This record gives sequence, C-alpha cells and structure tokens, in this order.
Amino acid sequence: MEYKINLPQGEMPKSWYNLAADLASAPLPPLGPDGKPVRPEDLARVFPMNLIEQEVSTQRWIDIPPEVLEILARWRPSPLCRARGLELHLKTPARIYYKNEGLSPAGSHKPNTAVPQAWYNKQAGVQRLCTETGAGQWGSALSFACALLGLKCKVFMVRVSFDQKPFRKLMMQVWGGECVASPSLNTAVGRKVLAEHPDTPGSLGIAISEAVEEAVQDSSGRTRYALGSVLNHVMLHQTIIGLEAKKQLAIAGEAKVDTVIGCAGGGSNFAGLAFPFMADKIHGAQVDIVPVEPTSCPTLTRGRFAYDFGDVAGMTPLLPMHTLGHDFVSNPIHAGGLRYHGMAPLVSQAVREGLCRPKAVPQLKCFASAMLWAQTEGFIPAPETSHAIAAVIDEANRAREEGKEKVILFNFSGHGLMDLAGYDAYLSGKLQDYSMSEDELLRSLGKLEGFPEP
Amino acid sequence: MEYKINLPQGEMPKSWYNLAADLASAPLPPLGPDGKPVRPEDLARVFPMNLIEQEVSTQRWIDIPPEVLEILARWRPSPLCRARGLELHLKTPARIYYKNEGLSPAGSHKPNTAVPQAWYNKQAGVQRLCTETGAGQWGSALSFACALLGLKCKVFMVRVSFDQKPFRKLMMQVWGGECVASPSLNTAVGRKVLAEHPDTPGSLGIAISEAVEEAVQDSSGRTRYALGSVLNHVMLHQTIIGLEAKKQLAIAGEAKVDTVIGCAGGGSNFAGLAFPFMADKIHGAQVDIVPVEPTSCPTLTRGRFAYDFGDVAGMTPLLPMHTLGHDFVSNPIHAGGLRYHGMAPLVSQAVREGLCRPKAVPQLKCFASAMLWAQTEGFIPAPETSHAIAAVIDEANRAREEGKEKVILFNFSGHGLMDLAGYDAYLSGKLQDYSMSEDELLRSLGKLEGFPEP
Repeated sequence: MEYKINLPQGEMPKSWYNLAADLASAPLPPLGPDGKPVRPEDLARVFPMNLIEQEVSTQRWIDIPPEVLEILARWRPSPLCRARGLELHLKTPARIYYKNEGLSPAGSHKPNTAVPQAWYNKQAGVQRLCTETGAGQWGSALSFACALLGLKCKVFMVRVSFDQKPFRKLMMQVWGGECVASPSLNTAVGRKVLAEHPDTPGSLGIAISEAVEEAVQDSSGRTRYALGSVLNHVMLHQTIIGLEAKKQLAIAGEAKVDTVIGCAGGGSNFAGLAFPFMADKIHGAQVDIVPVEPTSCPTLTRGRFAYDFGDVAGMTPLLPMHTLGHDFVSNPIHAGGLRYHGMAPLVSQAVREGLCRPKAVPQLKCFASAMLWAQTEGFIPAPETSHAIAAVIDEANRAREEGKEKVILFNFSGHGLMDLAGYDAYLSGKLQDYSMSEDELLRSLGKLEGFPEP
Repeated sequence: MEYKINLPQGEMPKSWYNLAADLASAPLPPLGPDGKPVRPEDLARVFPMNLIEQEVSTQRWIDIPPEVLEILARWRPSPLCRARGLELHLKTPARIYYKNEGLSPAGSHKPNTAVPQAWYNKQAGVQRLCTETGAGQWGSALSFACALLGLKCKVFMVRVSFDQKPFRKLMMQVWGGECVASPSLNTAVGRKVLAEHPDTPGSLGIAISEAVEEAVQDSSGRTRYALGSVLNHVMLHQTIIGLEAKKQLAIAGEAKVDTVIGCAGGGSNFAGLAFPFMADKIHGAQVDIVPVEPTSCPTLTRGRFAYDFGDVAGMTPLLPMHTLGHDFVSNPIHAGGLRYHGMAPLVSQAVREGLCRPKAVPQLKCFASAMLWAQTEGFIPAPETSHAIAAVIDEANRAREEGKEKVILFNFSGHGLMDLAGYDAYLSGKLQDYSMSEDELLRSLGKLEGFPEP
C-alpha cells in the first residue's frame, strides 16, 4: 500500500482555480464607507494592481507564473498521505487521505499565498511589505517569502502573542523580517491606542490597522500591505492544494472522494483544498464538503451573512461574509488561527449556495483528536488542524457504524511544533470548552445594525 | 529543473548496508572491565538479542523488515533536494544536493533508527524502552517510534536541557513518552548524584547510567535500553539515507558525486549518508567524504583513536574510537548533538582507513551559514546541521574559484524549529567561538592512561 503519493514537479498545476467563475450568483462587491462598491483604484495604495485584478477576477483559471512555481517546488507538490495508522486504530472501512501542508519551510499552508503575493508585489516595483500576524503563522510565512524574493518585510504581531510566542518572532528574524509588538509607537493608530491603554494585549484589528497605515504612509510609494486569508486572491493561491490532491487521488486509484474536510478561520486552507472539489459538486458530483470551526468562534454555524468590517477598528471596506460582528472577541482558545470574527466572502457564498456543510467542534475534543493522531500517525498537528482531524474521526466512525467504504480527504494545514504550549495546557487539564450564549451572540451581531444588507 | 527528487515508495531500499563488511580490517570488539572482548550474551540484559546480532554482524546487506519499511514510508523516502537558491547566491558552478531528513515527524534523521529499534525490541517481547537524551532529538524520536508500535518509553533528559527546552519534553509527552529530568530519584545512580550534588545540571553520562540501570533492574525482564547513535546497528539503520540518495542522484542524471558531507557528533547522520558512498570509494570511486564537527569538540580532528568508555561514569564497555577522553566536557555550544566526547567506532575506523577527511568548524561561522541557508533556501536548519552547511559553502566557493562543475551532496539532518533560542543568542551577539588549548587536550586525553590500546 502506498502511504505517501508524490506528484512529480512537472505535474504541478499550472493555473489556480477561481471559484468565483462557477458560483450560481456573481460575488458581491466590497463596499466603501459611502456604501458604494469599492473600485479597484481605491485599493491601489494598499495592494499592487496585479493582485487587485486577481481579487476582482471572475476568470476560471489564472496562470501561475513559472517563477512562483519554481519557489513553490522547494516543498510542493505536498504529498498526499494515507492515514493508515488512524484507520486501523478506528477499525474504519473508510480510506483517509490528507495533504500534508506542514512540510513547508514555515510549517503551514501559508507560504502558498505568501510566495505569489511577494512575487506580484515585486513585479509591481514594491520593495517592502507590511502585514499583521496573530499567532505568527502568517508573519513567518511572509518573512520567508520576502527573504527568497529579496523584499523587506515588517510584521505587526499582536502583543500578547509577541510575548507568549518568542520563537515565532525568531523565525521571522532568521528570515530577515522585522517583527514589532502591536500596538507599537511606529504608527499613529498604535500611539493612540497605547496612550489610552498602555497595558493593552493588542488585537488583530489593531495590528491590521497599523500594518495598513505603515504601508500607505510610506512616502516612497514602494511599500504595500499583504493579507494572509479572507480575500479572494488568497483563496485563489491556495487552490493549488486541492488541484494537486485531485491528481494524487487519481494516482492512488480513487475514482471518487466522498468527504472533503478542512478547518476554517479566515477560510484559506479550507478553500485551498475544497474549492476544486466544489467545482465538481457544481457540475453534479456527490461530495460532502465540511469546513470545521471552533464552537467558541462559530462564524459559519451561528453567525449571520452580512456586510461587515474585516477588522475591529472598521478601517477596511465592508465585506459580504458570515460574521459574528466585527468587535466579537473569541474566548481564549489555543487555535489562534481560528479566532476570526468573519469568514472569506467566497467561502461564505459557497455556504449560502449549499456547496458545503459547516460544523463546529469544541476544543477539548480537538486536542483529544490531535493526541490520537500523533500517537497513531506521527506528525503533531497544529491546534487549528486538530479541528479538521476531529471531524475526520467523526466521519470515519460513522463509516464504521454504517459499514460504508468511503473516501475521506482532509487538509493537514500545519504542524504544531510551535504550539506545544497549547498541548501543555491540555495535558495539565487547564483547558476548557467555550460556547457563547444566545444573548452574547445577539449583542455581538447587534453591531451590524444600520449596515447595508447583502 | 527538478528541485525535489522523490523516490517512489516501491523503490525504498529493502536492505541496510553494513560498512563492517567492506573495511580493510575487521572492526575491533568492545572490551569489558576485564579487558576481554565483550560477548553478545553479556549485553542481553541491555539490548535484545536480535539487535545484538546486528551490532556484531559483518554481513554486507541486512534486510529491512517490511513492517519497519511500512512505518518509515510515512515520511520516507526523504526527498533529495537541489539547493538552487544557495547555488545562485554563491555564483558557484557546483550542483548542491541535500537529503531533507528534517521532514520526519520528530524533525530529524533519528526516527530512522528509533523505528527499527522499537520494532526489534517488540519482536523480542520487550514492552518498554529506556533511554537518555541531551537536547531532546533522540528522546522525542524514540517516544514517537514507541507510540506507533505500542511500547512504553521512558526518557532521562539531562536536567539543564529539561529545564531549558520544555517543548522537547512536551513532544515526548504528546507521543505518550515519560520524560524525567536526570539525575532523578528513580535510580540508585541518580539518588547518589543528587545526594552529593543537589544542584547538578546533569550530564549525558549520568543520564545514560540511569537509563541503563532502569532497564536492567526491571524485575519483569521486559524492559531494555536503546541508544540513538555511536553503535554499529544505529549506523546500519541510518544507511537508508545514503542508499536512497544514490537512487535519487541517478534519477537526477548525476553519474558521479564529488563531495559527500555530514555533521558528526556520535556519527549516525554522517554515517547514514556517507557509508554507501564509502563502499564505492573502497571499490575505486573518487569521492571526497567529509564529517564536520565543532572546533569546540574536535573528536576526529584532534582526538586520539583509543579504547574509551562511551559514558562519563565508565558504565559502558570500552569502545575503539576517536575520543577526547570520557570526562571531556565541551564548552557550551548550541549544537547539543555534537558535544559528545567519542565517535562511532565504524566512523573512527573509516577515518583511520583514509575513507573520509574530517573537518572542524567554529560555531559563529555555522550560524552565519545557517542564516544564509534559511534566507536563500527556506528551511531553518538545526544548529548541528549548520556545521554541514558551513562545509558545503566552503566547497561550493572553492568550486567557483577553481571553475569546477562539481556535485556536492550533504545531509540536512534536521530542522531548527526547536532550537530557535540558539538563533536568538546568535542574533543578539551572545555567542562566541571556543577552541581547547593543547594543554587542556592533553589533560583530557590523559584519562586514557592504562587503558588497553587498540
């Protein structure tokens, strides 16, 4: 039995797949402060025009530049692996496959978009990128990409993570990235927040505002901003995962996949694996596609589809997406990448069009699933990834109960070697499950009152 | 150009290569306290007989059990990668290839022997393994292997590392391993040391003694000891690296390799890559084979070939090897895996027979090389691995100066994601180079007086 199906470099997908081309209704545009659709040129100080064109494109296939493929080839195609150890342990007739995105230099799927973003920026004459990072996955991936492409990189890292995860900051530094705690004294936004709340732990919303400010304020005009999830062009770049997986399943002799699973925070690793399979579903294939989120941040399962800000401070355009309200603050869970109040607009629309079936899982079940995975399969999963694993185990158990030979595919989005403090908390019994009450949910969604309706 | 040459699972080597079969003189035996060769049955309380048979075997090829191959196939064959980014940066005509052993679940080459050791022990009816670990690479690899094979695992981790590297301990715990700080109250040796030196930072020598004691004292007779380097059977298991590399170089169209490089502490990652190429050299191939060690622990470049203990306390048999004297204590360098006073007897004999050319590199140069590697290639190397990279850069620069198109192959033995504190110390200017004086060296070697001569 083949445990690891590699794809030759020459078989790497040459184009990304754009789900916007196949959705039943055209994607809704982001809106500006005036309630009118944002025009591409309005974003030109923030992003380079070549990425803005991808952001608004409805073309089905978009070519991957050969230079981008050359860099991705350092770790791609990622192997499609068979989780035979877990299958045997669960005594399931299901065949479980996973794309191992944890083998990239940064340890997650994030470099799949960091590299093309850095490359397109460089093509556009940009010399420096600014971004924010929460737990540090995205900041380290962008630092890595900038190192290889000779760009400068500055990362505003949420203060509490900056202090708690010094190793993530060090990864960025090894790749030549500059990492500062946010709020910082580098920006007007940061100075204002610090003056009012000197002891603030920071937030992703503040960090986004700082990164955007630093990018657009640079008088040389050679600095831009980069975002690691949510936006259409980010989903696009990640589809290389699912496109590779399809070729590898064919090599494995699997004519059909029954279930596709990915964890969902901003949506990019889920979309990357799932969108190419949604294309098949739109054309009649029977496939169950499951984005998995934490019960403590139930954007897709309990949130509302609405126009909302992408950040807490309301500096971004209004995006049409599932949201818990832009000032929703998730209870502390260890899957930092899944604590976002919103969701990628393309994923949100896919949910509305019935293309996928969201599911929420509590964190203790996720850590228990991660432990079982590590002890039967080997690789230690990121806490985010453990949400997908929990859902996979549910499906595999169901297959056993129903006596069905099904094929389950999921995205092993990253390893957990930088997240062992979370395992420590779990193993010492310090973690608990969280679920917001109906009252809290309604209060949080109340912030959307008066916003345009999609 | 192919950046990553994968080998299909079906092409995995089916046998390990045993250098002992091809050396000019038969390997010298280990000696007991009486100065007489140790007999296999003397070791039966420590190791299972099937591994003892491998330890003393001079058979050229030893079959890899299919069940072992099945587990290794979760991450093997490891890719052979082309370091094109580094080549371009150095403007070298050399073609640089590396085996990426950092992609295993434990992040290094160590699981290549941890898995077969756990498997052979299980075959022999052993239910529990004890071992020691310094920086934690070996302890985590053995915990991983034991988890997959359903054995219990207990790791005595040197106190100073136990305190400084809590994440390594957590890796072991996620894999179900029990990790205690050494010296501990669990053993007579540990209690004695603690009574005399309550604040001792511990040492690998003490930890070995504790692990051996716990293994042989277990009244059930179902516990054995496992060692992660130095011994012949460990070198044997690691040869899968070099055997794979040969097949992959052929796929890459390289008819000949000019230089083979690996860092050397106990010798196992170096031997794993290099031994199959030494076989060719013995049969006339021209290949330069370079084990690289730190100048602060110059076992091969300044040590003596002698009979010496494998541990500080003198509990092991006397081994014929290059050594700095069994109570040599290396100055603190961040490559914890390269601080061992001795060297694998097989590697030592290969040096004596002119099959390889040892080299020593100071640590600041190694970290500088690691930074250059990370920024041109991506993967962050372990501090141990950075020694190999420093030597690779020297060779690549020489090829440029000489205008020679040569093929360089090295072992990327592990990633550095658990060693970022070392990078922090380097980036903050806190590290320095060390080199022992002639006087210190002579004093250390003086401990060998009166020992049998090989």
